[in-house]
Amino acid sequence: MASSLRKALVYGGSGALGRGVLKQFSEQGWLTLSVDVASVPKESTQYVTSSCVIDKNAGSLEHFEKSSRAVEKFLKTHNAKTLDCVVHTAGGFVMDNHHENQEQFLEHMEQMYRINGLSACVATCLASRFLPETKTSKSNKVCILTGSYNAFHHWKAGVPVQIMMSYAISKAMLHQLVQCTDKCTTQNNAYDIMCILPKTIDTAANRKAMPDADISKWTPVPEIAKICYQMATHAKNYSNGGFYEIDTTNNVTSCRLVNVPDDMPKKAPL
Amino acid sequence: MASSLRKALVYGGSGALGRGVLKQFSEQGWLTLSVDVASVPKESTQYVTSSCVIDKNAGSLEHFEKSSRAVEKFLKTHNAKTLDCVVHTAGGFVMDNHHENQEQFLEHMEQMYRINGLSACVATCLASRFLPETKTSKSNKVCILTGSYNAFHHWKAGVPVQIMMSYAISKAMLHQLVQCTDKCTTQNNAYDIMCILPKTIDTAANRKAMPDADISKWTPVPEIAKICYQMATHAKNYSNGGFYEIDTTNNVTSCRLVNVPDDMPKKAPL
Repeated sequence: MASSLRKALVYGGSGALGRGVLKQFSEQGWLTLSVDVASVPKESTQYVTSSCVIDKNAGSLEHFEKSSRAVEKFLKTHNAKTLDCVVHTAGGFVMDNHHENQEQFLEHMEQMYRINGLSACVATCLASRFLPETKTSKSNKVCILTGSYNAFHHWKAGVPVQIMMSYAISKAMLHQLVQCTDKCTTQNNAYDIMCILPKTIDTAANRKAMPDADISKWTPVPEIAKICYQMATHAKNYSNGGFYEIDTTNNVTSCRLVNVPDDMPKKAPL
Repeated sequence: MASSLRKALVYGGSGALGRGVLKQFSEQGWLTLSVDVASVPKESTQYVTSSCVIDKNAGSLEHFEKSSRAVEKFLKTHNAKTLDCVVHTAGGFVMDNHHENQEQFLEHMEQMYRINGLSACVATCLASRFLPETKTSKSNKVCILTGSYNAFHHWKAGVPVQIMMSYAISKAMLHQLVQCTDKCTTQNNAYDIMCILPKTIDTAANRKAMPDADISKWTPVPEIAKICYQMATHAKNYSNGGFYEIDTTNNVTSCRLVNVPDDMPKKAPL
């Protein structure tokens, strides 16, 4: 008998954000599959139905094929044909610029490309393969990608993309991927794609890296996980191809559609 | 004695666009250095002062280092310390989407990343190393990158990014690179960066691929080369960080600053 439980793939399930998403979906009764380059830490394995570790140094095609086999096994075990949600939580951050250190920038670029850009491409490929139902119309299936507030709002005063170039460039890949997919899924009616744009996430790594920061502006992982869960379960309330800024002010987190750069500075034609 | 002739690096000088740029600058009396993964074809060698072939399969760091040594040798030969202009003309195009063929999309993504995205990163690193004067303020030094009209205007009706996903994603890297560099060079007053956004370029390869197309809308290579030359010699007339759409209608080519997406469709908040 097919399981009536809904099924989520978390691509990047071993990181701080991924573990939070696994916990949220699992506690709400979903079956969860984690794919990551590292194992899910012990304290989070209770939230993982199945998991798959992929080789950090492998190419994207190998990542896709190994992940596909893991999804197929996961679905077969639960007598199901499709997933209900794919959440991309893989990612990394570095600081650099090509003015001061070209070699460092290029090295970082190759890393960020794989960690941020290519991981989103693979996750979206898995969404395209395993979300759509056969011969049915759209049924609130959702793919959620983790973008970047800073890279998306690069044109805003005070957004320091010039000190995080390879990061911003790799996240621009992800944002364009959402924009291409938006056009495509609207045509095919296959699944919705949404992009979350967090600022600083409250993780152990960030607390260690920035011990003196004002963490009342940082977003707790469970808050982001709840937003992902809302998107997965109430897709109708969200916009296909939508970019959702996640802001935390005075410890209160909100989520806002921000596709429209109303305050983009206008360059006067010469 | 130092040569008083101005010096341009054309990164991607062996392709159709690169050869046109080399011809334009050379005929105007510039010294030219071509870097590419292939040799400059015989019929264009008259426009090349020096050239360097880099290994197609090498990483970006090796491309940067080999290119740097070629620039150093070029400058030393002419008793100069800096270049005056870097033009990035490397690039490629493929069609794909992750709905119909995930494996093809991922393979293309890796190719387009190197050919379009990473080549622009390396060219900009070379600009950062070899354009700025020591201890002087900005002296109309320019780095020009070749972006994409379609990828930049992805949100416009009729712009078919959903059938050229890996291409559009790789060009988004390049566009973000310009936007990060804009912020940085404005601060450092080091050099200006401009991005040209061609539509279809009238090349032998495009004529072969699309024999029935209306070529009155295609842009001839010499027209783009002239625009690059104008940017290099009249930088004051152009905007640092500017995106310049190159349009050809009824065989007439124009160049227009298009940073402001005035007609971007607005998604109403739900």
